[in-house]
Amino acid sequence: MIRRLCIIGVGLIGGSLARALRKAGVVGEIVGSGRRSEHLQEAVDLGVIDRFDTDAAKAVQGADMVVVCVPLGAMEQVFRTILPALAADAVVTDAGSAKASVVNAARAGFGKLPTWFVPGHPIAGTEKSGVAASFAELYQGRRVILTPLENTDPAATAKVQAMWEAAGAQVQCMGVEHHDDVLAATSHLPHVLAFQMVDTLARMSDEDEIFRYAAGGFRDFTRIASSDPVMWRDICLANDRAVLKMLERFRSDLANLAEAIRAGDGAELERVFRNAKAARDRHSER
Amino acid sequence: MIRRLCIIGVGLIGGSLARALRKAGVVGEIVGSGRRSEHLQEAVDLGVIDRFDTDAAKAVQGADMVVVCVPLGAMEQVFRTILPALAADAVVTDAGSAKASVVNAARAGFGKLPTWFVPGHPIAGTEKSGVAASFAELYQGRRVILTPLENTDPAATAKVQAMWEAAGAQVQCMGVEHHDDVLAATSHLPHVLAFQMVDTLARMSDEDEIFRYAAGGFRDFTRIASSDPVMWRDICLANDRAVLKMLERFRSDLANLAEAIRAGDGAELERVFRNAKAARDRHSER
Repeated sequence: MIRRLCIIGVGLIGGSLARALRKAGVVGEIVGSGRRSEHLQEAVDLGVIDRFDTDAAKAVQGADMVVVCVPLGAMEQVFRTILPALAADAVVTDAGSAKASVVNAARAGFGKLPTWFVPGHPIAGTEKSGVAASFAELYQGRRVILTPLENTDPAATAKVQAMWEAAGAQVQCMGVEHHDDVLAATSHLPHVLAFQMVDTLARMSDEDEIFRYAAGGFRDFTRIASSDPVMWRDICLANDRAVLKMLERFRSDLANLAEAIRAGDGAELERVFRNAKAARDRHSER
Repeated sequence: MIRRLCIIGVGLIGGSLARALRKAGVVGEIVGSGRRSEHLQEAVDLGVIDRFDTDAAKAVQGADMVVVCVPLGAMEQVFRTILPALAADAVVTDAGSAKASVVNAARAGFGKLPTWFVPGHPIAGTEKSGVAASFAELYQGRRVILTPLENTDPAATAKVQAMWEAAGAQVQCMGVEHHDDVLAATSHLPHVLAFQMVDTLARMSDEDEIFRYAAGGFRDFTRIASSDPVMWRDICLANDRAVLKMLERFRSDLANLAEAIRAGDGAELERVFRNAKAARDRHSER
């Protein structure tokens, strides 16, 4: 049971968590914070939060659970702002997509890595953003990764885990660097490829005609290119090490594939395509 | 009105066309042909075709419309086989995804480019294949491109156009090379990228774990990597000129993007991502 939940950054991710916990009946009061009072008022009007304060230091007062759902580039300043105002029993977690970056921001913003800070990342979301797109079922059956550090209080980790489980998610713990590698492969690389491909096509002279002949497969493939550009700019910069590693690997494989096409090497093309289809079919069954 | 329709290659594309024309009431008899009699019998059992002959020369006899829906690599042999058996009033068209390749196959298989041959390409399909996946609505509101040549009989083109319109499609004509460029951009490039990305991930040592954390965006992005590997091998080989041109363009843009990440150039990343999102959102509204 959470006495008072404070969500800093009430968009799709924070708003859906608030809705889910409210629906599960595991939270007393929900306080929101963020930069724009009109967005926070919308969250109140939608029943997502009970009240708000644009001053994050005021919003966290008396909260025993603080979830920071702001862009990666804004984490450090939020941590610095809330530190003096946190309740003695407060646990702080976040929803950032790149964990080494958040850990660095916590070290800088809090002045050290506190035992009550639990880095976290819900593997969920849609290409939409904003509190109006939030819904209580977003985390049902989805995975949440926590990356507690050596000095993190196990009780704090357990409290954050219980919160996400109440929202319907499955929680796993792993190391910070491993999280960043896995997410670079499954999320950051596909987003970068989709953004870049649509950009490449959009800069061609016959753009209008090209998109006119785009079929369903293209629409599925490029859906994630509709995601928030600023959020993805921040993710690429925050997880640059792992994203660059995956990009190098992919670019090398793609160069080989282009060479196979140039050489008319049908056997190699078929090997790559068969391997991909087998993996896609095998894993999408689960 | 089509007196007798012969579909050579009764899978998703040919089967869906047969179903649509039957439903529209614009076809007398539908004869199927293909390599495997068990697949053709399945098409009869499903009511997609009336009868079949695995010998394409026998199947086309008396047909006034012949639609060749076989893999690109099999076109030439089919053209060669059916030529002596075609009715005097027969119009032949195809559904191949790369038109220069089909035109070359027609020139070789028919011995010349006949006035009654109309190269065509329905921009439709799913990642599934086979007649069991076919459905009458596949072409509703979808586009079909015809690439008639200089010597193509306008009456033949008109008959093929009327057929696809009866199946619910919008028909446009364009040049062979232009078709291949447009399709390389909107279809062949995304398929190659999706196949290659899933292959890259599947060859990583922690494959199982990586796919476990794949979320909805990944599933959308990679759906087309579930497509038929042999068909896509053939498309890459048949449209190598245009596919390589698009791949070069994309690889150059991706190298620039990687350099922007390496340099921490957030403004450049945001420019690319914003441009992509704007194009995706603008064109997906239509």
